[in-house]
Amino acid sequence: MDDAALKSAAADLDGASLDAAMRALGRAARDGAEALRLATPQTRTRAIAAMATRIRVRAEEILAANATDLRRAEANGVSGPMLDRLALNPERLEGIAKSLEVVAAIPDPVGAEIARWTRPNGLDIARVRTPIGVIAVIYESRPNVTADAAALCVRSGNAAILRGGSESFHSAQALHAAIAEGLADAGLPASSVQMTPTADRAAVGMILAGLDRTIDLIIPRGGKSLVARVQAEARVAVLGHLEGLCHTYVHTGADEGKARAIVLNAKLRRVSVCGATETLLIDSAVAPRLLPLIAADLVEKGCELRGDLRARSLVPAMKPASDEDWTTEYLAPILAVKVVDGLDAAVEHIETHGSGHTDAIVTEDQAAADAFVAKVDSSIVLVNASTQFADGGEFGFGAEIGIATDKLHARGPVGAEQLTTFKYVVRGTGQTRP
Amino acid sequence: MDDAALKSAAADLDGASLDAAMRALGRAARDGAEALRLATPQTRTRAIAAMATRIRVRAEEILAANATDLRRAEANGVSGPMLDRLALNPERLEGIAKSLEVVAAIPDPVGAEIARWTRPNGLDIARVRTPIGVIAVIYESRPNVTADAAALCVRSGNAAILRGGSESFHSAQALHAAIAEGLADAGLPASSVQMTPTADRAAVGMILAGLDRTIDLIIPRGGKSLVARVQAEARVAVLGHLEGLCHTYVHTGADEGKARAIVLNAKLRRVSVCGATETLLIDSAVAPRLLPLIAADLVEKGCELRGDLRARSLVPAMKPASDEDWTTEYLAPILAVKVVDGLDAAVEHIETHGSGHTDAIVTEDQAAADAFVAKVDSSIVLVNASTQFADGGEFGFGAEIGIATDKLHARGPVGAEQLTTFKYVVRGTGQTRP
Repeated sequence: MDDAALKSAAADLDGASLDAAMRALGRAARDGAEALRLATPQTRTRAIAAMATRIRVRAEEILAANATDLRRAEANGVSGPMLDRLALNPERLEGIAKSLEVVAAIPDPVGAEIARWTRPNGLDIARVRTPIGVIAVIYESRPNVTADAAALCVRSGNAAILRGGSESFHSAQALHAAIAEGLADAGLPASSVQMTPTADRAAVGMILAGLDRTIDLIIPRGGKSLVARVQAEARVAVLGHLEGLCHTYVHTGADEGKARAIVLNAKLRRVSVCGATETLLIDSAVAPRLLPLIAADLVEKGCELRGDLRARSLVPAMKPASDEDWTTEYLAPILAVKVVDGLDAAVEHIETHGSGHTDAIVTEDQAAADAFVAKVDSSIVLVNASTQFADGGEFGFGAEIGIATDKLHARGPVGAEQLTTFKYVVRGTGQTRP
Repeated sequence: MDDAALKSAAADLDGASLDAAMRALGRAARDGAEALRLATPQTRTRAIAAMATRIRVRAEEILAANATDLRRAEANGVSGPMLDRLALNPERLEGIAKSLEVVAAIPDPVGAEIARWTRPNGLDIARVRTPIGVIAVIYESRPNVTADAAALCVRSGNAAILRGGSESFHSAQALHAAIAEGLADAGLPASSVQMTPTADRAAVGMILAGLDRTIDLIIPRGGKSLVARVQAEARVAVLGHLEGLCHTYVHTGADEGKARAIVLNAKLRRVSVCGATETLLIDSAVAPRLLPLIAADLVEKGCELRGDLRARSLVPAMKPASDEDWTTEYLAPILAVKVVDGLDAAVEHIETHGSGHTDAIVTEDQAAADAFVAKVDSSIVLVNASTQFADGGEFGFGAEIGIATDKLHARGPVGAEQLTTFKYVVRGTGQTRP
């Protein structure tokens, strides 16, 4: 079934025909995956660059579709940050095209040799990166994710099945038309990046069931409830992060200037990102001197502080923190503050209450930094830097599809390289096993 | 709860007390995991070497426990290869101790830097190997797996929860006592390698449920039905292989001598291993010349052949193959044989009927070898070598806990390195994000 047929089939879908359309989409993605896997790196690069070009060519149409989405969303009572994330304008659309060009410039990971060695019997063994296959990405009503996810999947040789939030349906369809043209421009099947043909929520359940085993991996990208639902219901492997409950620990050996700058940035640069610090741990040996300064910086910028008893004895204006505050991902200008006695107490708090996402220590004491790095088992552990660096772009990955807090396969920012698996290629000269 | 307490608690377990004992075991394993993770590589090496020593010291006791298991198994009607796999003797026990020493000599993967780079803003980013945490290994009644799994988990810094087949209960308990002593000799908590305290099958269900989220990964090691049950029921990540439906493809450009030696070895060296070839694909251009020779070699060694029409026209003594033969993992001296027209037809057959485990091509034609390697997406792809090389030891990993056919995290032989994950360590000098 080609793309045009899929779309016309999607015009009016009851349950049975949606089911049939989704199964067809899975089969088409499986075929697309093979074409992408066997394509040259240059072809994948050309496809991503052509997507950017086609988005620019179709700008007017995409913006019109987005205007339709915005009108309907407002009519449905969507407002504030959600409406803002849905909105496109010529500048933002150009930003989307540019970010595709960034992904086109990332080294292609497929076929790269990760390791190679020769056995005493002469067998030559290579571990070689290969695509995972078909990746389904389920995300919120953010048009830019449609383009980013498509580009990262193509860069890593994987076919994609995209399912955006229903509020962004028309924008996503318009962007997808440009993406499909870009693929065709490079001689790749348009079916290698698929978009669910309907805003019907039933399509999500079908994806979670695996579409007749055509899906190899599901990546939920969105809020905690979306990720939790996908992790609970999926009958396919899931790569996701549940939450970023990040800590910054100001150690006895902290430099005052660095501590103040890092805490302020870690909490307030953007409060809504998963790398934002949610709890400040400050060592009791430096709290009397540093906490009042750090608190004043934060309060001046509009941050609410919730402290334990000792923190409040040093900064009486602080609200009291409840047990719940230590496990709350605020994603808001609120910071929980706790005074701890030494590095091990800080590590213990992080292990008990953290989410294994990103945690930082501020210290000039090399031994303390080394101990923190060794003991804290989070996907990203920082020394003397803001937790807001938890981001694929900041790591040099060009783009990311999310930050994994699972322990298997990939941890931390998931870029093109993390969207691959590997196989072993063994070259012999007739060896048989004794 | 220490080990002695766990064991006395296990003496008489009803449902509620088994549940309590298993939860305690999970918590103890979690604590043991932290100790193992923070131990030095030298400590882990010492622990594994001490396990070998303690097994030698306790040899008499272990063999007596094994004799009990054997008596009961025979009384229960167990016989043949199953009974043989359960049986220990002084020589086999020494083999187990020696294989622990091999694992003790494997480079310790924990803390190894996989990659390191510096960002333009001066942030120094390292990707560092870390243990996964607590790994539950569920296996059949094979005493050697108790020792191998314990050693590989310790080598990779992971705590282990071991659950062997009920027929091997006493042997496993006796081996576990030696393992626990070895851990203690190196100053590690004995709780970092746990053994389920009962042969009760209900314990498996509790492990599959995750023991209060104390288990990070379950590895089923055994037959297809065990792996299928674990994959279907586990509420924790699973790393397993379902089956090894391996192919050897004799291409037009095959060397006659290599083709004959490789097919004979790939099928018959050991028929019960997952890397044994189950289907021979032979190119129609060379089949008239080579198939009668290959068939004669196999038949002489007692192998039954089941061929498609064209194969049978060349070797009339062959039985006819049914559709089911192309998807059967015989694990027996039986080989399915199909004549194919060219490399793409061979690849297509492998993709349709294979299990993504191990597949080989025999050819002197470099371009054909390259095409086969690129097109076949199995965890191990071989050129001019026997599929029976699909084995962690043969790959130089020292030991393996199984061969993964999943696509995520690890593929192929799973050794100590594949039992680790990684974290990012980011070292800054006060960087904040603009």
